[in-house]
Amino acid sequence: MAKHLLGREVAAALEADVSRRCAALREQGTEPKLVLVRCGEREDDIAYEKSILRQAARSSVETEVRQLPEDSSPEEMKKLLRELSGDEKLHGCLIFRPLPEGLGPDRREICNALAPEKDVDGCTAASAAAVYTGEGAGFPPCTAQACLEMLDFYGVDCRGKRAAVIGRSLVVGKPLAMLLTARDATVTLCHSRTEDLGDICRQADIIICAAGKPGLVTGEMVRPGQTVLDVSMNYLPELKNADGSLGGFVGDAVFREVEKTVEAISPVPGGLGRVTSAVLMKHVVAAAERSLE
Amino acid sequence: MAKHLLGREVAAALEADVSRRCAALREQGTEPKLVLVRCGEREDDIAYEKSILRQAARSSVETEVRQLPEDSSPEEMKKLLRELSGDEKLHGCLIFRPLPEGLGPDRREICNALAPEKDVDGCTAASAAAVYTGEGAGFPPCTAQACLEMLDFYGVDCRGKRAAVIGRSLVVGKPLAMLLTARDATVTLCHSRTEDLGDICRQADIIICAAGKPGLVTGEMVRPGQTVLDVSMNYLPELKNADGSLGGFVGDAVFREVEKTVEAISPVPGGLGRVTSAVLMKHVVAAAERSLE
Repeated sequence: MAKHLLGREVAAALEADVSRRCAALREQGTEPKLVLVRCGEREDDIAYEKSILRQAARSSVETEVRQLPEDSSPEEMKKLLRELSGDEKLHGCLIFRPLPEGLGPDRREICNALAPEKDVDGCTAASAAAVYTGEGAGFPPCTAQACLEMLDFYGVDCRGKRAAVIGRSLVVGKPLAMLLTARDATVTLCHSRTEDLGDICRQADIIICAAGKPGLVTGEMVRPGQTVLDVSMNYLPELKNADGSLGGFVGDAVFREVEKTVEAISPVPGGLGRVTSAVLMKHVVAAAERSLE
Repeated sequence: MAKHLLGREVAAALEADVSRRCAALREQGTEPKLVLVRCGEREDDIAYEKSILRQAARSSVETEVRQLPEDSSPEEMKKLLRELSGDEKLHGCLIFRPLPEGLGPDRREICNALAPEKDVDGCTAASAAAVYTGEGAGFPPCTAQACLEMLDFYGVDCRGKRAAVIGRSLVVGKPLAMLLTARDATVTLCHSRTEDLGDICRQADIIICAAGKPGLVTGEMVRPGQTVLDVSMNYLPELKNADGSLGGFVGDAVFREVEKTVEAISPVPGGLGRVTSAVLMKHVVAAAERSLE
C-alpha cells in the first residue's frame, strides 16, 4: 500500500518556517501583510477567504480584505490594484478569481494592474513570464508551488525523472510543467486531447493529476515506485461518506485502486489543498523579505 | 527514404503571402517597416543583419538599422527602444542578441523597454507571457513559429499527436512546447538531463531537434512514420564538403541515418533557417495590420 502524502504535515513545516521568518521581519520593524481583493459576494470566494484568514492567523501574517461591489468597472478594479501596489505596508495581494463576468472579456488583463512583486498567487502576466522564463519578479500560482513543496518535504528528487502533468491550466498544469522542467525533470504535459494517457502515466516517475476529472487515472495506469500528487478537488454530490451522509470531494485518481500499486500518493481531501494556503503565506513573507532588500 | 522538408518551399509560400498583404497595406497608406537594433559590431549579428535585409527586400518590407556603440549604457538602449516603440511609422523591431555583456547581468531585461506589439521576435517578457498563456500582445520567437509554419505547409497535423521537443531554450524549445500544446499535441520537453531520450523520441510522432548538439539524434532513436524538424545549426570545422573544402553546418540529427527510417525530415542547411527570416517578415506585416485595427 502506498505511503500517504499528507497536506497537514507539509503545511505544518511551512507554517513553522513562515512564523520564524515573520518574527525576524517584525524584529526589523516590518509587519508582513496580505490583502485580499474580492469583487462581489460569490459563495466560493467567501469560503476560500475564510480559510485564508484562518491560515494567516496560524502563520501570524496580518490581513486586510478589500471588497468591491460586483458591478464595479474594470477601471475601478485597476485603480484599487494600483493603489495597493503602491502601499508600502502591504506585501502581498490575492485577487479572487475568476473575476465577475460583468468586468468584460478582458477581465484577466485587469489583474496586470497589480505589481508583480506583490502578486503572491501568480495571476499577472509578469508572474506568468517569470515562471515560464525563470527570470523576473512575481510568484508561481500557489497550487503549482504546493506540489513542489510536497515533493521537497517527502524527499522526492525530480532531477532526471520523468513527470506526467495531466491538465494544462495556467493555475497548475502549465506552471508546474515549467517548474519541474527547471528542476531537471523531463515533463510530458497531458490534456483532454492526449490519446495514450495510460502509457504516458506508466512511464512517469511522478504523476500530477490536475485535470479536474474524477476517475481519470485508474489502477491500470500506474506501476510500483511512482509518486502521485492529486491536485484536483472534484465535488461528487452522490459520494457516500463513512457516516452515511452524501456528497464529498475526490481527486482525479481512483484512490483505492492507485494506492494499491504506487509508492506514494496524496489523498483528496487531506492533500494539496491544505498546502496551497500555507504556500500563500510563504509567498507573502518572501515578498516582505524582498521589499527590504 | 524520408521526404525532405525544404525551407525554400515554405519560405516562398510565406513570402508570397507577405507580399500580398504588404500591397494591401500600402493601398491603405501604410508602409510596413522593420527596424533592426544592433549594439556593437559582432560578426554574427552583421551576417544575420545582411540576411534579414535581403529577406526584407524579397518580401517588400521597408527596413532601417539603428546602431549603438558596444559600450552603450542600459539606459541608452532603453531610451532608444522606448523611442522606437512610440514611433507610429515603425511596426516591428528586432534586437540582435545576446546583447553585449557590458550591459550587465540584467541585459535581458533591457528588451522589455520595447512595446510588445512591435516585438516581432518575441524577446520581451510580455511576448513570453503571451506565448505561455495564449493571451496578450506580442509574438513568439521566429524560430519557434518557423517550425509551426513548416508543419502547416507540409500538412502535418499536430492534434492528438505526441511531440518530443529536445532543448528547453527560450528561443525554440520552451515556446515551441507551448505552441504545440496549444495545438493539442502532447509534448514531452527534453533536455540535457533527460535520461531516456531514445525511448521518448521513438514514441513521438513529431521530433523537434533544438539542443545544439551534433549527433544527438541517431538512426536508432527513430521509427517509420515520424516527422523530424531539425532547428539546430551546429558549425563543424572538420566537416568535409562535396567540393573537398572543410567546415560546414549540421543539425542535431544524424541526417544520413535518420532519413533512412522516418517519413519526413528538414535538412541542415536548407531547412528551418530560411523559414525563420520569412516568419520575421510575416510578423512585421501582422504588426502593421494590427496597428490599423
